[in-house]
Amino acid sequence: MDSILFRKNIRNGLFRGQTSGECKNFTQTNVVILDKKYAYDFLVFCQRNSKPCPIIEVLDPGVFEAKITTPNSDIRFDVPKYRVYTNGKLKEELHEIESYWNKDLVTFLLGCSFSFEHELVESGFYLPYYNSSRTVPMFNTNIPTTPSGNFNGNMVVTLRWIDEKRVDEVIAISSKYTDSHGSPVHIGDPEKIGIKDITQPDYGNQWINNDKNYLPVFWACGVTPQNIVLSSKIDFMITHSPGHMFITDLSTSNIN
Amino acid sequence: MDSILFRKNIRNGLFRGQTSGECKNFTQTNVVILDKKYAYDFLVFCQRNSKPCPIIEVLDPGVFEAKITTPNSDIRFDVPKYRVYTNGKLKEELHEIESYWNKDLVTFLLGCSFSFEHELVESGFYLPYYNSSRTVPMFNTNIPTTPSGNFNGNMVVTLRWIDEKRVDEVIAISSKYTDSHGSPVHIGDPEKIGIKDITQPDYGNQWINNDKNYLPVFWACGVTPQNIVLSSKIDFMITHSPGHMFITDLSTSNIN
Repeated sequence: MDSILFRKNIRNGLFRGQTSGECKNFTQTNVVILDKKYAYDFLVFCQRNSKPCPIIEVLDPGVFEAKITTPNSDIRFDVPKYRVYTNGKLKEELHEIESYWNKDLVTFLLGCSFSFEHELVESGFYLPYYNSSRTVPMFNTNIPTTPSGNFNGNMVVTLRWIDEKRVDEVIAISSKYTDSHGSPVHIGDPEKIGIKDITQPDYGNQWINNDKNYLPVFWACGVTPQNIVLSSKIDFMITHSPGHMFITDLSTSNIN
Repeated sequence: MDSILFRKNIRNGLFRGQTSGECKNFTQTNVVILDKKYAYDFLVFCQRNSKPCPIIEVLDPGVFEAKITTPNSDIRFDVPKYRVYTNGKLKEELHEIESYWNKDLVTFLLGCSFSFEHELVESGFYLPYYNSSRTVPMFNTNIPTTPSGNFNGNMVVTLRWIDEKRVDEVIAISSKYTDSHGSPVHIGDPEKIGIKDITQPDYGNQWINNDKNYLPVFWACGVTPQNIVLSSKIDFMITHSPGHMFITDLSTSNIN
């Protein structure tokens, strides 16, 4: 589906689900909305950690239209599900954030691995959650990020099981999507990056594969900045709900 | 030469020249130093204009060591020549900036096309200024940038004459260096991007080529942010002198 029509459906309450597999060829993004007093340290954090935090667009304070990538969008209504955090805790999940909006809020759009999943599927890779109500499994790790101001913590990753004979192919495909996390950050033994139980993701849905010919392949994940901001104990943040992304008008072929 | 030894020579006053052709395999960077009150708008400007302003590193306020890319460097001494601007005008060129340093200064390191020139030369492209006291010709254009705060203006480009039969090759090579301006922004007719006289560069040295088989190929240039900041009439800025870059310890093969 076209990204403009898709956002219209979201705005009208017709779509409130996960966005994996939706709007082929359009760049999907994570959303982080912060008071402008935190914006500089957060932007430097993203620059220092571009693998989990590839910036697609930064909106000016108080502006809710993503003018550069997505004219006529409205970030207050165009995400299928939002999370509002106060004092480091989840306050509520909801489908629009108009009542929370104010002139000091700065919106960051960050690349998402869903943007390269279409090409993976077209190349014959099996993603059990693709185009369903489920989403990719995500895990906290012990991979450190580079701090900026109070923002500091470990990376979150996505997991996809890949036939070991095709790992080189999956690297080649995802590497092209440098603004959507690019190549994997780890391949193989989950314990080496601090994941104790590969069957119990910290976010998203379970994906178990006991076939010895398949390797777990891990990509940096845009849930990382949400986690980092939360652990820095700032008083207020709005994000998308994991898996429920903002879909831009930017072609995925523009972002290499 | 190794980047550490090269910076040591600069710090000891043994090297004060242009850096094109120096320190093969090490990423060269433009330098912009601003008061922290301008840092957020400038960083957003760079994000919105990543072709001319690819950010390699942002130092914390008052910090003069590029800790991430270049441990033990000192940005006050390790650039061969600096420019100090006050109230939008060039005040002086000098070889160290210790007397200007203060705790509110934020240093930005931005990618430079010199980083891909080594591979061009190794592939048999002729660059008349490479490894000499001269540098690449640079031109102001009419290509607009995307504004941020008061930062607003047109792009500066570098020119290299390329055999028309090898333009595809030069695109393929430079495209890999996404943090060093990447692929060209224009090929052919200089007037289409507002350059009236290709023999009179606005910065750097003249390079005339009357061979009809050669096309002028233009890349986004890291002098762009200097120009943009100057035209925004901020009160104080320090930069490298065009062509006299800061050489990081970052391998050019890391930046794709």
